[in-house]
Amino acid sequence: MGTKERRLLLLSSSVVHGSEYLQHAADDINNFLKKYHVTRILFVPYALHDYDEYTNKVTSVFEKWGYKVNSIHTSKDPVQAVKQAETFYVGGGNTFQLLKALYDWNLIDPIRKSVLEEGVPYIGSSAGTNVATPSICTTNDMPIVYPPSFTALGLIPFNINPHYLDASPTTHMGETREQRIEQYHKIPGVPPVVGLREDCLLHIEGDKITLKGKSCVRIFSPGKNPEEHEAGSNLSFLLKTI
Amino acid sequence: MGTKERRLLLLSSSVVHGSEYLQHAADDINNFLKKYHVTRILFVPYALHDYDEYTNKVTSVFEKWGYKVNSIHTSKDPVQAVKQAETFYVGGGNTFQLLKALYDWNLIDPIRKSVLEEGVPYIGSSAGTNVATPSICTTNDMPIVYPPSFTALGLIPFNINPHYLDASPTTHMGETREQRIEQYHKIPGVPPVVGLREDCLLHIEGDKITLKGKSCVRIFSPGKNPEEHEAGSNLSFLLKTI
Repeated sequence: MGTKERRLLLLSSSVVHGSEYLQHAADDINNFLKKYHVTRILFVPYALHDYDEYTNKVTSVFEKWGYKVNSIHTSKDPVQAVKQAETFYVGGGNTFQLLKALYDWNLIDPIRKSVLEEGVPYIGSSAGTNVATPSICTTNDMPIVYPPSFTALGLIPFNINPHYLDASPTTHMGETREQRIEQYHKIPGVPPVVGLREDCLLHIEGDKITLKGKSCVRIFSPGKNPEEHEAGSNLSFLLKTI
Repeated sequence: MGTKERRLLLLSSSVVHGSEYLQHAADDINNFLKKYHVTRILFVPYALHDYDEYTNKVTSVFEKWGYKVNSIHTSKDPVQAVKQAETFYVGGGNTFQLLKALYDWNLIDPIRKSVLEEGVPYIGSSAGTNVATPSICTTNDMPIVYPPSFTALGLIPFNINPHYLDASPTTHMGETREQRIEQYHKIPGVPPVVGLREDCLLHIEGDKITLKGKSCVRIFSPGKNPEEHEAGSNLSFLLKTI
């Protein structure tokens, strides 16, 4: 047992325009899995409605790369599957649906323990990235089901807004993403939010965070002006904000 | 007392690009208020953080048009204020914050009763439109606070997606709005969703719905292909779907 360092790869998106599923992050994902000598992946498909179809799609990609995939929904004992997992891949879809299923199956504490105490690697994409943070308060998804709480896995101490989008200069489209995050930051005691643009990902290893991908991220901290950080930046300061 | 017909004006947005607050709907709002001989408006500012600032903004617009505005947050007894209201204006902002406040102040039943049983006119914009429907399940807002339920006022039997946006052909931006609504419709028993584009509004009078504004709406019904309906259309069939 003993506390091992966390190992996370958090993607904004599983698909980038004009590219196949996970292909834009193929190198980063493969380097991550190789680094930790992973051979098997436990897939969590709860964010989408059709678990079998989703599992087939994900399996075909990871198998091409040489990894074996089991989906948690085919396990009779999901808690046991989590305890035996070599690595997690939590896919995107609807964040509310995903979080509700994690609660329904009593998986919040087991996954947290695996990642934070056992060092089991965790890859999340979109909704899977949202649930890795302290809460799902900065998801873009529609609240199509009611989870028992917005509190999520808390594998890191700050929020992420996946698919972060800059304001369009020509159309209104309701509040901008930045305005929505500002509304969140009017609530006392909430953490910083990383606006993770489409092709960005965060690699978190213990207390070190590196920004991967091609775009900048926009970081919102309560009471401060937003800051842009370039691809390749060290963002470890985010782990010291709380 | 006795059951009077409902009178609702539901706006997609309070601001359209290049226009001042509520100006794009000024004629429709004024016609609505005149038709029902309204002189006083009870404003509900809960969707934004700064109630005073929000009230000032709204008051200045309605006063210019000749109406008196009271904000519910200045009342010592909000339930009583609802009971005495001549008309409601529920403004936009964050839908979760708005719904939570309506529950916190025990206003769900009193507002529902005023509108559905007493025929008190209700104007909603964006978040104020979302809470008029059976649930907030099709809001675009971030879940920045946790309401005790997603069930809303239920003044009409279908959902609305305000600020409805067509898919961008060039950027991915996560799931499209249509995909998000399709995810919602995989849940058994949920109602149709009206995708209300930026400058659209619905005028509901008893069992009649008229689409006002300049754009088409896109209507999503479970198990059917989405349908476009032009400005001016009679959408009363939506009241017979449940």
